[in-house]
Amino acid sequence: MTEPVLFDRVALIGIGLIGSSLARALKAAGLVREIAIFDASAEARTAATELGLGRVESSLAAAVAGADLVVLATPIGTYAELGPELASGLKPGATLTDVGSVKQAVIRDLGPHVPEGVHFIPGHPIAGTEHSGPRAGFAELFRGRWLILTPVPGTDPEAVTRLKFLWERVGSMVEIMEPGHHDQVLAITSHLPHLIAYTIVDTATQLETSTQSEVIKFSASGFRDFTRIAASDPTMWRDIFLNNREAVLEILGRFTEDLTALQRAIRWGEGDKLFETFTRTREVRRGIIDAKQA
Amino acid sequence: MTEPVLFDRVALIGIGLIGSSLARALKAAGLVREIAIFDASAEARTAATELGLGRVESSLAAAVAGADLVVLATPIGTYAELGPELASGLKPGATLTDVGSVKQAVIRDLGPHVPEGVHFIPGHPIAGTEHSGPRAGFAELFRGRWLILTPVPGTDPEAVTRLKFLWERVGSMVEIMEPGHHDQVLAITSHLPHLIAYTIVDTATQLETSTQSEVIKFSASGFRDFTRIAASDPTMWRDIFLNNREAVLEILGRFTEDLTALQRAIRWGEGDKLFETFTRTREVRRGIIDAKQA
Repeated sequence: MTEPVLFDRVALIGIGLIGSSLARALKAAGLVREIAIFDASAEARTAATELGLGRVESSLAAAVAGADLVVLATPIGTYAELGPELASGLKPGATLTDVGSVKQAVIRDLGPHVPEGVHFIPGHPIAGTEHSGPRAGFAELFRGRWLILTPVPGTDPEAVTRLKFLWERVGSMVEIMEPGHHDQVLAITSHLPHLIAYTIVDTATQLETSTQSEVIKFSASGFRDFTRIAASDPTMWRDIFLNNREAVLEILGRFTEDLTALQRAIRWGEGDKLFETFTRTREVRRGIIDAKQA
Repeated sequence: MTEPVLFDRVALIGIGLIGSSLARALKAAGLVREIAIFDASAEARTAATELGLGRVESSLAAAVAGADLVVLATPIGTYAELGPELASGLKPGATLTDVGSVKQAVIRDLGPHVPEGVHFIPGHPIAGTEHSGPRAGFAELFRGRWLILTPVPGTDPEAVTRLKFLWERVGSMVEIMEPGHHDQVLAITSHLPHLIAYTIVDTATQLETSTQSEVIKFSASGFRDFTRIAASDPTMWRDIFLNNREAVLEILGRFTEDLTALQRAIRWGEGDKLFETFTRTREVRRGIIDAKQA
């Protein structure tokens, strides 16, 4: 509790896994004086109250009123609708950020509504689990994980630094990135892996019932790892794919080409081609272990 | 050391992750009186000697001579070549098993060479890690994991029971299955997930160098889980794809259809279709958690 207070009043809009983890982390670090919370779901609001995450309000306007920092942590498909109401409640000098997994669409949907004098700094914590909702959150979620900020040109550097400090204090390593580049990098590291995991699990659900139960029984042989990813929040992921369409379709095209090449190698018994590919990919794992992200 | 000895002399051919884990587990459980080891790699033989895994022989014939149980634990691509030499050394009443991930091809390659009076019982432990080699093994690898036996018609039930007992004593749960069905189930639970993981990691290696380092940096967002699978032994996996071609191509065809449907939904902004799929796949994860295979 010896940390300096970075923001007097913080409003968290959306209190799912990320929102509730941030509330817990901010409280634990004593970084803010007050946390106001709003979530469109009455069930989530009740949970937030029971968990003592902050002052739970029953309207967006009441939560945002007087806030020095507003963190939008709802599925990105809601941003276009929330934008106008949110913007009208922001006080001059306040900072508006978010935690959405796509950044160009967020700037498109929120940017036009942000009033003069408010610092709009989109953000994205590369952290999460396959669980969702306020009860799934925990204060350590951001520890040792990356947080990407994608400020738009002309943003006050001091405001960026203050937000960067906040995320660092809850354990994140912060990187500044251009929004379009963010969306491309995340398309390969996150969006495509999720799409593929969802697909393979869905393919399995369409097998005959007897085989399905065996798929579950013998899932430890590889399939299991995909089911964890494919258990992620459906609303959040629908919105990600709809809002990062170009980058996802582009990387998916490359993936399909590569998969078709391997398929052909299997069909024609080209063992050398398979061996070369499988040797190359092994190196990437070593890179991740060396980068301490394993 | 109070367990009854099930086999007097066991020969382990191939002392990689699986072979060395089995050697350790058999020793720890006191299930066999002697373990003889052969591996074509001098480096692996040296490691096996240093690790004290058993009596290391410099020829296949010397390891197999007098064995009551022979466990073939080399990449399945070697079976066709090893078959004749192996078979000639088997004594009447001995059991020959293996740990390969494909079963029809194993029966095709080894079956014809097995002499009258030898019990040929193909097997497959659903256990492993992304590490390979004798030093990667550990005695607990099979604990709580499935082991599938695919005996050919006419196999002595007593011999099957004895081998089943052996695997159960090292912690496995044993299932008897028809070889062709085994290959289909494993194509979806194991072979397709590995093929896809190899592909996505390979797609990433072909991005520009600057993006590649970012892929590693931000890999915690999904990609990381695939790199672990894509770090598996290249020789073993080349052989699996070449030897389970039909089943892999069939399930890969279904997967590609499903992926194309999701790709189309993304392109045309069909959010409902995405949401439905992502909700369905979530249920599968629950099934795996309920089956205690998570």
